[in-house]
Amino acid sequence: MAEDRSEQEPARRPGGRTARVRHRILEAAAELIARDGIGGLRYDQVAELAEVNKTSVYRNWPDRTALVADALATFSADVAPLRDSGDIDADLVDFLEAIAAALSSRQGRALLNVVGAAHDNPDLRAVVDDAIAQRLATLSQRIKAAIETGELPAVDSHLLVEMLSGPVHLLVSRGTRELTRADAQRITSIVLAGVRATAAQHTIALAGEHDGGKTPAARP
Amino acid sequence: MAEDRSEQEPARRPGGRTARVRHRILEAAAELIARDGIGGLRYDQVAELAEVNKTSVYRNWPDRTALVADALATFSADVAPLRDSGDIDADLVDFLEAIAAALSSRQGRALLNVVGAAHDNPDLRAVVDDAIAQRLATLSQRIKAAIETGELPAVDSHLLVEMLSGPVHLLVSRGTRELTRADAQRITSIVLAGVRATAAQHTIALAGEHDGGKTPAARP
Repeated sequence: MAEDRSEQEPARRPGGRTARVRHRILEAAAELIARDGIGGLRYDQVAELAEVNKTSVYRNWPDRTALVADALATFSADVAPLRDSGDIDADLVDFLEAIAAALSSRQGRALLNVVGAAHDNPDLRAVVDDAIAQRLATLSQRIKAAIETGELPAVDSHLLVEMLSGPVHLLVSRGTRELTRADAQRITSIVLAGVRATAAQHTIALAGEHDGGKTPAARP
Repeated sequence: MAEDRSEQEPARRPGGRTARVRHRILEAAAELIARDGIGGLRYDQVAELAEVNKTSVYRNWPDRTALVADALATFSADVAPLRDSGDIDADLVDFLEAIAAALSSRQGRALLNVVGAAHDNPDLRAVVDDAIAQRLATLSQRIKAAIETGELPAVDSHLLVEMLSGPVHLLVSRGTRELTRADAQRITSIVLAGVRATAAQHTIALAGEHDGGKTPAARP
């Protein structure tokens, strides 16, 4: 899993090497969580798989639940990033395609099962909630950047992410058909058109324009 | 659960006694599938729980996989119907609220786990696919009625259902917060506005109207 060892990595900038070691630890942790579940995660195995000293793991994550949450959030950010090319529509299509691929992968499916199994255990639920909160916070940054440039109207960024990724999760989990790039494009185009249209309606309603009461108040 | 008992059934009448017996059998089967999984379903237990003769079950469902598929499809239609009040927007909001409630119920969660567990077993997958196809066919009838009355533009009815129910599934399965009626309204209003807006764009593009190439081609 870890493709390069710490000996051969030059320090490009302060924190660079540390960041790479941390990332390798999180990759190893995600791999082991996919294999053994959250409850089965052991620091010595993480250290061995990441090829670092066990003290590196303990020093960076004295709290075990933080290691699990960070590993889940990092896995999901790595496999399905929401990039910033300056075109939010295109970036979201890429994002949905990547989610579909990740959910179809061995490790993605295993981690999804782990997350599902955590549902009825309050302690594990809290860890999963932490990972989801981290993930949504990262995705929201990109959405908010698009709102600032005027590419998107003011919108609840969490709801937007849920509306885009929800259908992808549903289609992949059912597995009745492949999610194609055309699907990702249609989902993105309908949701973004809907967000833009309801925001426009909302603006019109606020401005007191005459719509004869036919336009329902939008809830942006 | 079962309101009337029977040793033998008279000739079939739509909505009559036979329909009620069939429905009671399917309710009993869904209850047992939730408890024991698809593989654990036994005809004698279905008959006992439904309080009918085992021959009634065999006669109506000589094929075991058809019984399972019908039980899953009927459960989901019963707990989350898509009614026809003449207002598709309102009917879809009710539908999403009902899905959320069903997915949060004991039996709904159990059946969702059963369906999830079927993912990696080709035989069970085929049964689940059959149930989903039945369910989508029923929901599509209501969507198509709304298209015929002009309430909705021509739209892929399966995709529309997936785009509406996907976010509900995601939110409920994560369980980080309750899905409220306001959420159901926002999801419905954004998706339907998006469907209407992209259909309008598509019509404009087809009519060759001047939009300076700014409107991306919609995929209805």
